Amino acid sequence: MGSGSWGTAFANVVADAGAAEVVLCGRRAAVADAVNERHENPDYFPGIPLNPALTATTDPAAALRGADFVVLAVPSQTLRGNLVAWRAHIAPSAVVVSLMKGIELGTSLRMSEVVTDVLAVPAEQVAVVSGPNLAREIAQRQPATAVMACPHEPTAVRLQHICKSAYFRPYTATDLVGVELGGAVKNVIALAVGVAVGMGFGDNAKASLITRGLAETVRLAVTLGADEHTLAGLAGLGDLVATCSSPLSRNRTFGEKLGQGMTLEEVVAETRQTAEGVKSSESVLALAREAGVEMPITEAVVAMMHHDLSPAEALAAFMSRSAKPERYGV
Amino acid sequence: MGSGSWGTAFANVVADAGAAEVVLCGRRAAVADAVNERHENPDYFPGIPLNPALTATTDPAAALRGADFVVLAVPSQTLRGNLVAWRAHIAPSAVVVSLMKGIELGTSLRMSEVVTDVLAVPAEQVAVVSGPNLAREIAQRQPATAVMACPHEPTAVRLQHICKSAYFRPYTATDLVGVELGGAVKNVIALAVGVAVGMGFGDNAKASLITRGLAETVRLAVTLGADEHTLAGLAGLGDLVATCSSPLSRNRTFGEKLGQGMTLEEVVAETRQTAEGVKSSESVLALAREAGVEMPITEAVVAMMHHDLSPAEALAAFMSRSAKPERYGV
Repeated sequence: MGSGSWGTAFANVVADAGAAEVVLCGRRAAVADAVNERHENPDYFPGIPLNPALTATTDPAAALRGADFVVLAVPSQTLRGNLVAWRAHIAPSAVVVSLMKGIELGTSLRMSEVVTDVLAVPAEQVAVVSGPNLAREIAQRQPATAVMACPHEPTAVRLQHICKSAYFRPYTATDLVGVELGGAVKNVIALAVGVAVGMGFGDNAKASLITRGLAETVRLAVTLGADEHTLAGLAGLGDLVATCSSPLSRNRTFGEKLGQGMTLEEVVAETRQTAEGVKSSESVLALAREAGVEMPITEAVVAMMHHDLSPAEALAAFMSRSAKPERYGV
Repeated sequence: MGSGSWGTAFANVVADAGAAEVVLCGRRAAVADAVNERHENPDYFPGIPLNPALTATTDPAAALRGADFVVLAVPSQTLRGNLVAWRAHIAPSAVVVSLMKGIELGTSLRMSEVVTDVLAVPAEQVAVVSGPNLAREIAQRQPATAVMACPHEPTAVRLQHICKSAYFRPYTATDLVGVELGGAVKNVIALAVGVAVGMGFGDNAKASLITRGLAETVRLAVTLGADEHTLAGLAGLGDLVATCSSPLSRNRTFGEKLGQGMTLEEVVAETRQTAEGVKSSESVLALAREAGVEMPITEAVVAMMHHDLSPAEALAAFMSRSAKPERYGV
């Protein structure tokens, strides 16, 4: 459900794996027609051939009818409304899979929690896919790995089975909290990395921010019930490294322009959209304060994005924090 | 001791921190003269100004006399011989600090173990510095973080005190085994990442190799007595990410040329040296087999470097391994 870049690429992964029939459902008829007739998504992947077995529709009821797996790939803040509209067509036995990385504004719910809230589906039928998964590379069938997480492991194994192919290697996991928080916080850290890159700093600073950013993600996630190993894995470290390395990442690019000296208003005007991490930095920091967890990089991002702190001031504040052991606060 | 790139950059970090007097000791008189007269190391950092308080000598006895800290930055395989020559001049109370990342061939000893073996100095006086520390960036005074590790924490704190400055942020740790294994295995993983980059693969594949490479490093290190959190930190993840991101890394570059289709002999001929990871991949795999730990990426690197496996065959073997949970074997 959702024919954006990741929804399309993941549908193609499942079609390539060949173990399940896949229907892609989007709003734009032109995209559905192109997928059905030319095996292409011209909006996101012009020129990249999709699997001919992949079909598309604009009719949610048709797509959902009898589906064993319902895979959700819509913008995070539209999920609740979409689920309400689709609810009647989802089979009670369907496994509902989230590809989304966000925290619902207002409720601070993770995407799987929104699913449970709206659909009242049992936890063993709610799963999440995450990992170092830049959509374009996966559409190009470059090698990648991912995590299929469900508290009920057999569900994760079923999902693994319908995804596994010569270029896509899925691992199973059971820790939804860790997988989803890893995905949400990484956009905030990617903003900080972008700022450092924009200021002209090199690979030491980038690697330090990634490592210390993951350390504060772990502090938050563990306090909220996650297994710390999840964050050391593909949905934490892996996704973070891919996002922070890719010049295509919107969050990194947004940070870079700030680091180069543009004001927030100028960056928003130039990019014509606010990067996901700009919004979620505030909800992540709110979660951290409620939980009593120190997140100095997230704090710096919030101060830069919402309270006019300059990148140079943020750097100075970070570097002059008291000397510490590497591991604290867990 | 050692006026190579990292020895010089670290001496300059301590001089910049301003809490200790620093003498750099190298073999080349021209370098020592340039440091003393022009505050520059022309071999490694031409044009980058070193701290004027930093002095240099070619006389090990003069450098070692009365030193509270003896910082070692010589090629790994020459450490034992150097220590035997210097032993008589090192004060019994001196803290001996290793900046080196290697495993001694033949003995499979880590560098701190070679120190203890030759100097018979108590464990509370042996420390290791590691982290995402590309030497050139640190000489340029770009922001960086590092770990100061000693089983006796007050020693690590003393070391932290003489390093901390506005651009260099040291954290303390107590796990020598984890810090040193992280440094040794990262060169092997960087070779694998280089091969993938050379084959034309993108950020998903790179991030997957970094994540799964770290997972196998953790399996080995924990089996050999390390704390797994060390590997999630600056000396594990941080150093690995910096090395794998930098186009300047010798190991990554070596792998890239192989991935582009050159033979091992052609790469060695072109680079005129063998990358550290080529040698250490075999000793790391030997350690893994003794310990009964699966290290599929290290195995693939050894097979490519020493047994004529092609990069395409290595990739196919890796991707077709049996489907697994993300976390196993710890």
